[in-house]
Amino acid sequence: MALADLEKLEHNEAGIAVALGVLRQRFAEQLQTSQALREQHAHTTTYLPPQLPDAVLFAQSQDDVQEAVRICAAHKTPIIAFGTGTSLEGHVNAPAGGLCIDLSRMNRILAVNAEDLDVTVEPGVTREALNAHLRDMGLFFPIDPGANASLGGMAATRASGTNAVRYGTMRDNVISLKAVMPDGQLVSTGARARKSSSGYDLTRLLVGSEGTLGVITELTLRLQGIPEAMSAAICSFPDVGAACNATIMAMQAGLPMARIELLDAASVSAINAYSSTEFPESPLLLLEFHGSSGGVAEQAEMFGAIAGECGGSGFEWVSKAEDRNRLWKARHDAYWALRAARPGTQALSTDVCVPISRLAECVVETERDIAEAGLYGPILGHVGDGNFHAALSFRPEDPDELARAEGVVERLALRALEMEGTCTGEHGVGQGKRRFVRREHGAGADVMIAIKNAIDPDNIMNPGKMLAL
Amino acid sequence: MALADLEKLEHNEAGIAVALGVLRQRFAEQLQTSQALREQHAHTTTYLPPQLPDAVLFAQSQDDVQEAVRICAAHKTPIIAFGTGTSLEGHVNAPAGGLCIDLSRMNRILAVNAEDLDVTVEPGVTREALNAHLRDMGLFFPIDPGANASLGGMAATRASGTNAVRYGTMRDNVISLKAVMPDGQLVSTGARARKSSSGYDLTRLLVGSEGTLGVITELTLRLQGIPEAMSAAICSFPDVGAACNATIMAMQAGLPMARIELLDAASVSAINAYSSTEFPESPLLLLEFHGSSGGVAEQAEMFGAIAGECGGSGFEWVSKAEDRNRLWKARHDAYWALRAARPGTQALSTDVCVPISRLAECVVETERDIAEAGLYGPILGHVGDGNFHAALSFRPEDPDELARAEGVVERLALRALEMEGTCTGEHGVGQGKRRFVRREHGAGADVMIAIKNAIDPDNIMNPGKMLAL
Repeated sequence: MALADLEKLEHNEAGIAVALGVLRQRFAEQLQTSQALREQHAHTTTYLPPQLPDAVLFAQSQDDVQEAVRICAAHKTPIIAFGTGTSLEGHVNAPAGGLCIDLSRMNRILAVNAEDLDVTVEPGVTREALNAHLRDMGLFFPIDPGANASLGGMAATRASGTNAVRYGTMRDNVISLKAVMPDGQLVSTGARARKSSSGYDLTRLLVGSEGTLGVITELTLRLQGIPEAMSAAICSFPDVGAACNATIMAMQAGLPMARIELLDAASVSAINAYSSTEFPESPLLLLEFHGSSGGVAEQAEMFGAIAGECGGSGFEWVSKAEDRNRLWKARHDAYWALRAARPGTQALSTDVCVPISRLAECVVETERDIAEAGLYGPILGHVGDGNFHAALSFRPEDPDELARAEGVVERLALRALEMEGTCTGEHGVGQGKRRFVRREHGAGADVMIAIKNAIDPDNIMNPGKMLAL
Repeated sequence: MALADLEKLEHNEAGIAVALGVLRQRFAEQLQTSQALREQHAHTTTYLPPQLPDAVLFAQSQDDVQEAVRICAAHKTPIIAFGTGTSLEGHVNAPAGGLCIDLSRMNRILAVNAEDLDVTVEPGVTREALNAHLRDMGLFFPIDPGANASLGGMAATRASGTNAVRYGTMRDNVISLKAVMPDGQLVSTGARARKSSSGYDLTRLLVGSEGTLGVITELTLRLQGIPEAMSAAICSFPDVGAACNATIMAMQAGLPMARIELLDAASVSAINAYSSTEFPESPLLLLEFHGSSGGVAEQAEMFGAIAGECGGSGFEWVSKAEDRNRLWKARHDAYWALRAARPGTQALSTDVCVPISRLAECVVETERDIAEAGLYGPILGHVGDGNFHAALSFRPEDPDELARAEGVVERLALRALEMEGTCTGEHGVGQGKRRFVRREHGAGADVMIAIKNAIDPDNIMNPGKMLAL
């Protein structure tokens, strides 16, 4: 069981008690220690059991964060950064207790530079809040994990979503950031140049570092102009392999698809039930095209021809904005749809990413494995990236079912690694995938540990996550 | 003078002598110590005076590199990785002597995965050799610094070029790599998944590390399908500001330009003389559009309208492949054109990158500064990225002229930093820009040094570059 792998971390009760005393003096009501709030800050959409922090600090400024980190550093008190709590792999658990820094009140949009297509935000701004703010300016920020996550959290976990095939992931869309390091120093990893060859890429080092190197307090993000035309489409396929082939052909032809999402038959069925949609219940691609009206029409036509060659059918346009929004809302609600398909269950949502040429094989083997494990676990994913999710349903009161789900996760991660892929494409490592890091990275894990030890020698930044030190 | 800033590095003669003895036994003729070869390996297109390594090893395999690094590590002997020697900031100088590892014989293309749009190569493959190999498969690799550089060197300096506005830089196009670290361990930073949330981003840490953390021995790169249609265009503008405004408007409109290059009047004049072209001698944009035939025509038409609004004139199509190739050949030969414009001179080629909204201001101030310094120094650049170059001409026998050129470089770097930019967009830091790293990165420089010390505690990997330890 995954939890058995969790490091036994020492709980520095004496140090934490002193730190909390100092923090309370400094922050008064901003610091909370009620059981309810502490539970709320360990409870996320993960299947992993909660581990509560000793206190929650509602930070309101960079200065707050800096001061809190300095106090915690002085007393070797763990620090867990918290955005919206939508992570899936136990990133915000506090296995050694300590201080949860809730950044949701740091939610100001500091500057939109329309000419440079960039925006500077505090880490607590959510992706939906940012896009609501940008809409009237004709701009948008494309990265869209299922949840309405905070941008700081999205950077910390190197999140992506349905638009990554066209616009990249957080890796590609964070121009620079500011972070409070374990010694309390504020580091700025760059300014607003779109590219730089000056120094080590600290932006990319912090993106995906899962709070283990520092607390992100500001981000400058790349924006896109809202395209003149956007059009979605759906297309059914006889099997997952055919859908993957169509995707490969379209990408080789250089079709700049904005979104290309795969749902297996079980996912379609669950989404239909939850979102009152009427998609045909066989493997389905959901697509979106961005561009000029002429370009979008041309792209869709080319894709239609490719899909036809691959055995696709029922290619259907979704051009009206409200229909398009309903389509993607249904896709984004997939996690809840899959849980609702079996009332009273939880979902262990896992993801891997493989080269697209191996995707069909990986999905089919995983479907078989899930069936053989006697589990309900629909598969859906970002097929243009080779990234897919399995949502493995389990009853919390049935430890055997959870154990079988964890077996599927283990075999899936190893299958992805064998296929030259990665154990997680966008969910991150957190606690849940820590046991795969050395298998994936080999000697690279030692380099990661050397970096972690150099920057955070006392291991106060989100201890017990990502790396097995 | 820049060289005065170079760290006085200890030359570990005793250790190097022992290492060379061991290396000679192991590598026989692969190890060379002739003055001519050592000079050739310190002589690059940089303006900085050469500093020779003690020996040059022609590595033929990953094993060679690994063994050489282990021997050097045992005797604290500096290691300088060498690709084609086209760097501009003294990256391959050997200020503390040591072993130059020439990787040009590691030039095999190991695997093309057409379905996944990726390729795995050894580091000595040049960008032109790769593209020649890919052409018949309908694929290409877009990153194109002026020189026919090696892909290992391009990764090490985080190179880009004229296509970066559409396809990104080496940062975005290296999927994963292998590197021999200072302890001789071979690290693989990933496999072939297009994205990953597993662990620190070691790929991006090594890209742009300028050989200071390890020697890159293999790269997996992202490829593009050759577009159905490609079309270039030129357009003149009354001044640099107008050309920048047209670029900003086109990018805000979401026009997916593949290339958009700015030449100032002096650059146009030098290029016309060197390449027998007949461009109008005022600020000029060179553009390229990639897509379907319909899409390309539409993009060009939209850009034409925008350029007209901004005072552009003489918008002219270049559709025939041979004319297009001549156009970009002329652009890529700009460095030589600028040197030829003043026979007997060398060029100090410097670059910065600023937010595009500040580009016109930065270019105009720099033109004025160059004129006031009494120098000949045309400006040209990748305007879509906000990245531009000044090629400052100087007579090697005139130390005052070089000093004035270095003054321009200093003021230009600081001007870029003031404008929220970076001291180098694509040339890298090397020796020439080391003095700006702390000013640009502040406390971030300490984080970089901590990483360097953790990974390379004896400072054997390209010492005296990038960081002032």
